[in-house]
Amino acid sequence: MGQRNDYSELVARVAGEGANAWDTHYDALAARERGEDVVILSVGDPDIDTPVPIVDRAVAALRGGDTHYAPLAGRAPLRAAIANLHESRTGQKVGSENVIFLSGAQNALFAASLCLAGPGDEVISCEPMYPTYPATIEVSGAKLVRVAAGADFRVDLDALERAITSRTRALFIATPNNPSGVILSERDMGVIGDLARKHKLWVVADEVYAGLAPGGKVPGLAAQLPDQVVTVSSLSKSHAMTGWRAGWMVGPAALIGHVESLVLCMLFGLPGFVQEASLTALGMAVEAEAATRAYCGSRRDIFIEGLMGAKGLRCHVPDAGMFTLVDVSQTGLTGREFVKQLFAAERVSVLDGAMFGEATRGFVRICFGAEPAALREACDRIQRFTASLAKKV
Amino acid sequence: MGQRNDYSELVARVAGEGANAWDTHYDALAARERGEDVVILSVGDPDIDTPVPIVDRAVAALRGGDTHYAPLAGRAPLRAAIANLHESRTGQKVGSENVIFLSGAQNALFAASLCLAGPGDEVISCEPMYPTYPATIEVSGAKLVRVAAGADFRVDLDALERAITSRTRALFIATPNNPSGVILSERDMGVIGDLARKHKLWVVADEVYAGLAPGGKVPGLAAQLPDQVVTVSSLSKSHAMTGWRAGWMVGPAALIGHVESLVLCMLFGLPGFVQEASLTALGMAVEAEAATRAYCGSRRDIFIEGLMGAKGLRCHVPDAGMFTLVDVSQTGLTGREFVKQLFAAERVSVLDGAMFGEATRGFVRICFGAEPAALREACDRIQRFTASLAKKV
Repeated sequence: MGQRNDYSELVARVAGEGANAWDTHYDALAARERGEDVVILSVGDPDIDTPVPIVDRAVAALRGGDTHYAPLAGRAPLRAAIANLHESRTGQKVGSENVIFLSGAQNALFAASLCLAGPGDEVISCEPMYPTYPATIEVSGAKLVRVAAGADFRVDLDALERAITSRTRALFIATPNNPSGVILSERDMGVIGDLARKHKLWVVADEVYAGLAPGGKVPGLAAQLPDQVVTVSSLSKSHAMTGWRAGWMVGPAALIGHVESLVLCMLFGLPGFVQEASLTALGMAVEAEAATRAYCGSRRDIFIEGLMGAKGLRCHVPDAGMFTLVDVSQTGLTGREFVKQLFAAERVSVLDGAMFGEATRGFVRICFGAEPAALREACDRIQRFTASLAKKV
Repeated sequence: MGQRNDYSELVARVAGEGANAWDTHYDALAARERGEDVVILSVGDPDIDTPVPIVDRAVAALRGGDTHYAPLAGRAPLRAAIANLHESRTGQKVGSENVIFLSGAQNALFAASLCLAGPGDEVISCEPMYPTYPATIEVSGAKLVRVAAGADFRVDLDALERAITSRTRALFIATPNNPSGVILSERDMGVIGDLARKHKLWVVADEVYAGLAPGGKVPGLAAQLPDQVVTVSSLSKSHAMTGWRAGWMVGPAALIGHVESLVLCMLFGLPGFVQEASLTALGMAVEAEAATRAYCGSRRDIFIEGLMGAKGLRCHVPDAGMFTLVDVSQTGLTGREFVKQLFAAERVSVLDGAMFGEATRGFVRICFGAEPAALREACDRIQRFTASLAKKV
């Protein structure tokens, strides 16, 4: 093969920093597989197991022979149940035709990206930004336009407005945000809604962590701008179902039809037993979300307490979710160096904040969704690590 | 939103005939869900259940809490087991770094398409062609160049050579073919290999049905052209695991790396319990494939016998697999009319051959992977339907 043109141009768009953000995380996973003593706080994957009734339903479906092809967009009762949950969270009246079941929220963001923009278009997203976003947005051929974070990692609404051009097609927003845990306010959303209306923009709302916000919902635009808002969510975080790959998109029926055509060539449907388990999960959403919120609150408290007094660290306390951003700039290390050296010295994996944008450079993102003993152990190790750094200085 | 530019150009590329090919099939699925008496022969989904040890492994994994994120490319032991199966089928020496686990072979074809070609490129595929291929190939922005079928649905090697231009990047071939069941010969593959070498083309070999071919393998190019051949396969057909979405791609390590970056934004990994079940499946590949081959043979015989004497029908007997093409042109109906009228009159769903290309226009594709009683019933209904058509003429 010719050296230069072996692969499509797309491969460069999906590579890059985002794809490397997880290097230490994967080193940590590999070390754990080898039986080594590591604490993994680099991914938002709570240590709790999926609730038993959900597992039971999957098992019953598997035992009952539910191992054949399923409808591309998901089974009708599942789509209806997602529509119900969405309606109760957002107030937007939707039916099954507005819903498609996908392989996790990441897959839903990917599908939205491909169907809403392309070469020559611009798509805006605000920092701090989840590391998969650049690839997810640029995979379509569109250009990602980044908006720098405002104070306390909030959206800088003026900067957002300035970023809009005649080429802008869509705005991807995450609320609650990963990594900052910031929930956009009613006022923030009002301004964003006005901009979307004025410039005829799609708003892709990544609400994966909405179930973990106080009351299980966040301010949003879906009810006001039903023809322009695409809501993406999943069971991963709210129901401790990260590994199931159970997510969805809610939006205009025409978009859902386009995504269904995409699914035909992208996935050809998803497992029926995962869909049945997801239906059970949706039937217990209120309890599951309440349990996960309580879990996040208690683990956050353990973690914040465990890090108190750590030399050179400063924790940003999140509105919601299972992450905290920790400012490590006073240690004299960059975020990336901190991540690498912490893992090398103490076998605790966290994520470099620089992967989320400029405002979080000098920070690391730590997931506190871990077993209490492991979390306390991790805090002790981080304390020891920062103490050792302080000595060197 | 502006009416004209609501969606990306990609949505038109993934829509079209391919996406409509399944209309009657989905009507039939919906009718079955409503409890109606339908026989579905429109999809390659055998009526047999996934072997019990595979289900058992999934259940044990679920019960054991294997519900968390898994590595993007698939777990190491699974990738190694796929490498082993591939090596035994093709003779190509590969390791885990040449393998990525994906959400079914369709997802693997999609990923190959995106990583190997793009706007301005041409990708060749031969008719008869599985209806998802046009969207799968053109989703990347590349242009699909169709090669018409030769005699008996074999590849027309001269036409294939004439189709190659300086823009050609890849050739997608399916062997055994769906819908024809044709297995490309050593000689066919030799010529294709020479063309691929001469023009530096990628060869994407869709070998989803290879396990159902006599001896569980087909002539291929992977061992001779390891830097240019991408092999796609799955457990769907060989292990009665259609609904699990368990497939893979085997190819150069650099390609696998690119696909892994794509997976980060497309899927973010796949369920661990599906991976564990797939590992169990790979450990019993020889028995499972032999059982499926015996199954296909016996069902084919029931079907061919059941259709004997049907007015105006002529069956093409496949080399392998679970489909037969039936020439319906003597009934006076187009394939599409035959599909619609057969379903309306007798509630038997089959697929219009025109969806696979010109050579299969006037044919319908029938999957004989159904329970014997249902298959006999379907044959009786088809006989009754064709008799009723003969009366009208």
